[in-house]
Amino acid sequence: MGGAILVLSGPSGAGKSTIIHKSETYIGEYYFSISTTTRLPREGEENGVDYYFVSKEEFEEDIKAGQFLEYATVHGNYYGTSLKPVAKALSENKLVIFDIDIQGHRLVEAKMGDLVTSAFITPPTLAELKRRLYSRSTDDKSIIEKRVENAKNEIKAINEFDFVIINDDIDKATEEFITIANASRLKLSEKELKNLIVHWQNNPS
Amino acid sequence: MGGAILVLSGPSGAGKSTIIHKSETYIGEYYFSISTTTRLPREGEENGVDYYFVSKEEFEEDIKAGQFLEYATVHGNYYGTSLKPVAKALSENKLVIFDIDIQGHRLVEAKMGDLVTSAFITPPTLAELKRRLYSRSTDDKSIIEKRVENAKNEIKAINEFDFVIINDDIDKATEEFITIANASRLKLSEKELKNLIVHWQNNPS
Repeated sequence: MGGAILVLSGPSGAGKSTIIHKSETYIGEYYFSISTTTRLPREGEENGVDYYFVSKEEFEEDIKAGQFLEYATVHGNYYGTSLKPVAKALSENKLVIFDIDIQGHRLVEAKMGDLVTSAFITPPTLAELKRRLYSRSTDDKSIIEKRVENAKNEIKAINEFDFVIINDDIDKATEEFITIANASRLKLSEKELKNLIVHWQNNPS
Repeated sequence: MGGAILVLSGPSGAGKSTIIHKSETYIGEYYFSISTTTRLPREGEENGVDYYFVSKEEFEEDIKAGQFLEYATVHGNYYGTSLKPVAKALSENKLVIFDIDIQGHRLVEAKMGDLVTSAFITPPTLAELKRRLYSRSTDDKSIIEKRVENAKNEIKAINEFDFVIINDDIDKATEEFITIANASRLKLSEKELKNLIVHWQNNPS
């Protein structure tokens, strides 16, 4: 069985990073895809850990060179996923985990849908999302309000996802995530399915 | 979270019953849907355990009365799933497991697709399928050959399934089944998704 892809989406403040962190010894070998962005680092964020932080010019050059699996503009900044490390991880039979938005999810489904399982992670309510964003206090009010508006729009697309994790209890949400991650590895690629069908037709005894 | 449906398909001889039996203490509360059929019981099969065995006339009356979630003709016999016990189990938040063929799967997806996760279970090779069917020796040669032909056709539809379990090691196949069964419970119904979306739009603080 080859590698597989797990797409995670959901508003900032949904708890995605915490859930992945708490799950990491229970989901086998994986590669967490690090996005490239033109937005400025928040306090405590590191280049090559949280994101690859690049200039707008560098990002646009990479677009032209076809280096992105997907990219999009959110709140006026570019966000994208470089193709190379993903292809490498898949060839090593790893589970590739993406933390991307619904636009990114659509693009990855369109390009590699046969390998993709997707989950939308959300806080239980809008009020709880606001509470978390304000208590994290890394962003100012106008950015938080933008994030909240964005969340209201994103949640309308939850029916595009295979699974929804409602994070009102971090341990329960983590357990659900582990189950989904382990199931997502069991997807066969289109190529593997085709080989199986051909094999069954051509081996009459 | 409400009930959910797990559809299992695959040739007789794939090991479905064994896998379900070995999994049963690891997948939570479930209802294994018992099909109704007009075919004759094999040796050792019990009415109400393996199938509900009924006459062709009874079956056709139930079709007219709209009692079936799905039904089909295979090898000249009727096979069908009665609606009532499924609805009851779903209302009790159970996982409903179906062991049905690819026609049945299509019909269940059409009627209750939002609740359905599906897995196709297959022996690794056609030769291995034959070996298992002959060593089980409950059917005569002509029936086995029919099953083998049927398997060759069914396997062409594996891309319609969310997951494929290749049963070449019963413990590994069982573990994969348990993972899939637990993930399938995490599906939200269309109604639950709609409620979530509405809730997020209407609670601005």
